[in-house]
Amino acid sequence: MSDDPTPRAREVIFGSQQDRIQQRLDDLDPDLGGYIRDFAYDTVYDRPGLDLKSKELIACALLTSLGSPPELRTHIRGAMNAGATEGEVRGALMMCVPYLGFPRTVAAFEVLRQHLER
Amino acid sequence: MSDDPTPRAREVIFGSQQDRIQQRLDDLDPDLGGYIRDFAYDTVYDRPGLDLKSKELIACALLTSLGSPPELRTHIRGAMNAGATEGEVRGALMMCVPYLGFPRTVAAFEVLRQHLER
Amino acid sequence: MSDDPTPRAREVIFGSQQDRIQQRLDDLDPDLGGYIRDFAYDTVYDRPGLDLKSKELIACALLTSLGSPPELRTHIRGAMNAGATEGEVRGALMMCVPYLGFPRTVAAFEVLRQHLER
Amino acid sequence: MSDDPTPRAREVIFGSQQDRIQQRLDDLDPDLGGYIRDFAYDTVYDRPGLDLKSKELIACALLTSLGSPPELRTHIRGAMNAGATEGEVRGALMMCVPYLGFPRTVAAFEVLRQHLER
Amino acid sequence: MSDDPTPRAREVIFGSQQDRIQQRLDDLDPDLGGYIRDFAYDTVYDRPGLDLKSKELIACALLTSLGSPPELRTHIRGAMNAGATEGEVRGALMMCVPYLGFPRTVAAFEVLRQHLER
Amino acid sequence: MSDDPTPRAREVIFGSQQDRIQQRLDDLDPDLGGYIRDFAYDTVYDRPGLDLKSKELIACALLTSLGSPPELRTHIRGAMNAGATEGEVRGALMMCVPYLGFPRTVAAFEVLRQHLER
Repeated sequence: MSDDPTPRAREVIFGSQQDRIQQRLDDLDPDLGGYIRDFAYDTVYDRPGLDLKSKELIACALLTSLGSPPELRTHIRGAMNAGATEGEVRGALMMCVPYLGFPRTVAAFEVLRQHLER
Repeated sequence: MSDDPTPRAREVIFGSQQDRIQQRLDDLDPDLGGYIRDFAYDTVYDRPGLDLKSKELIACALLTSLGSPPELRTHIRGAMNAGATEGEVRGALMMCVPYLGFPRTVAAFEVLRQHLER
Repeated sequence: MSDDPTPRAREVIFGSQQDRIQQRLDDLDPDLGGYIRDFAYDTVYDRPGLDLKSKELIACALLTSLGSPPELRTHIRGAMNAGATEGEVRGALMMCVPYLGFPRTVAAFEVLRQHLER
Repeated sequence: MSDDPTPRAREVIFGSQQDRIQQRLDDLDPDLGGYIRDFAYDTVYDRPGLDLKSKELIACALLTSLGSPPELRTHIRGAMNAGATEGEVRGALMMCVPYLGFPRTVAAFEVLRQHLER
Repeated sequence: MSDDPTPRAREVIFGSQQDRIQQRLDDLDPDLGGYIRDFAYDTVYDRPGLDLKSKELIACALLTSLGSPPELRTHIRGAMNAGATEGEVRGALMMCVPYLGFPRTVAAFEVLRQHLER
Repeated sequence: MSDDPTPRAREVIFGSQQDRIQQRLDDLDPDLGGYIRDFAYDTVYDRPGLDLKSKELIACALLTSLGSPPELRTHIRGAMNAGATEGEVRGALMMCVPYLGFPRTVAAFEVLRQHLER
């Protein structure tokens, strides 16, 4: 990663957890695991046009809309790995208040709290 | 606006349409119009911690998840008023593919097309 | 309706439009039309335990969550037919602000506006 | 609270749990906790036009649509604190059957069962 | 049941668990339990026009969209009881990738894994 | 198509409209159009394990859950192109009643009606 000026998004997002996460997805279904690696990450995420930090802050908001706590936690960590401060993550989650209301947003801040307390 | 170092988010987002949009909301219900101006914009949006361009790109993604074409169009324009390039807006909408699937994303790009063709 | 101490919910909700609405549903699919009449209205709606006005205010809120303008309009009229004031309907829709956020709520007030202006 | 003919909605809904709940929300994020207290409760909930019992029955239905068990449990208790009978709460949840289908409704009745068995 | 060439859908889907599941639903609310048995199963599911295996594969996809793990597990078992192979269930869940995105689909494959490992 | 024992899913689903639909998607965004063709259709849809008719009936149910009328119409036609009878399409849409409730299902049957009347 050090010599590569643009590391793959999944290397930054998952960091040292990359192999463990990929293995877990492959165990669920090898085709599904491959789609996530080759399409979601190496195609959509690695598409130029928007910086990775912004992509991950958007991912955090979308996962708040879906109510998916484990994935949200992964991408809160991913946003910070991509350079977001805690304040920027809080700012991204707070944008869900006017668009999605309070219950989904409170659930997302609960995930953030668990991540910060780990 | 020029002398003010931090204009209100709603001034940037709505630009010359601000009075028209606020009037339309007030006509629906004066309390609702007030909540949107005083709480959604002047409290949540104006909260520091994340830049306005990032907030608007997140808004575009959340409105894609909600399937709300008129509001999405307002905030595509708002994102660009806040400094986002067309490429960054496309990047924000494209992040909806892995998280929300294709139908919601295609509908959002249709709104972008209408905005660009106006 | 006057002599019947407890008219069927669908008679109150739909009023003079009952036959037209039922015909439209039967034309879509006779089984579907029958399910809505016999199960949704004559079984679930006519179940005792909660007054019809409250049921219709709840229906208005749920249809706001679903983003279903035509059905929402039918049940705004139904809530008023069941005794709700305009202020109570506005109060029911406004409860969607903290739970669902602004875009869905604004869309619902737009349907209310169209109903009141008819 | 005793002398005030119209206590604040959050005093009725949360009862003796009010301080604990507010503290938990403030711990997640002080701005978020403040928005919920000052805007969601002291502005939207305390807006006149609809009685608190009806507001809470609507909240129960909306939380069924969102699939948010902890908040649903809080507002089932809140509806009863505001004067709703168990039968009225069952009636409100049952309205979710025709609008949202069975899985969301069954999950809501499971929350009611846990509340009643506490 | 033995002489009937077309057993009721709920007998096939629930198999030996039928009484336990029905009792659990009746305990939540006797009306709700009755609606599920008499309307959802004995009316909608038993309606001719589509084979039971296809109905259950569709149910698995819809429960993936709802994010309802316990019901999804019941209907993964139901699909297999109705003749679906593991490969067909995987194929049904995989169809959620293009329509709903990855987070909901990964959650569904997690339920499948738990079912297969039981 | 006649000599090919397993034509591509998108050839069957779109039939003579394939070029027009692909052009419309490419015009929205060339990357998005490519993702739909190469990933959604030529990878996920063409994955073996489930027959195309079942995949399209599932697609119709998922598009009912999303409330996406234009895509639903495309895949109602696609299901029929893949061999589904009108009765099977009605059966697939009817499965949405117990899982999603009536408003989404009625909207889907409205799309079916428009398709059959064209």
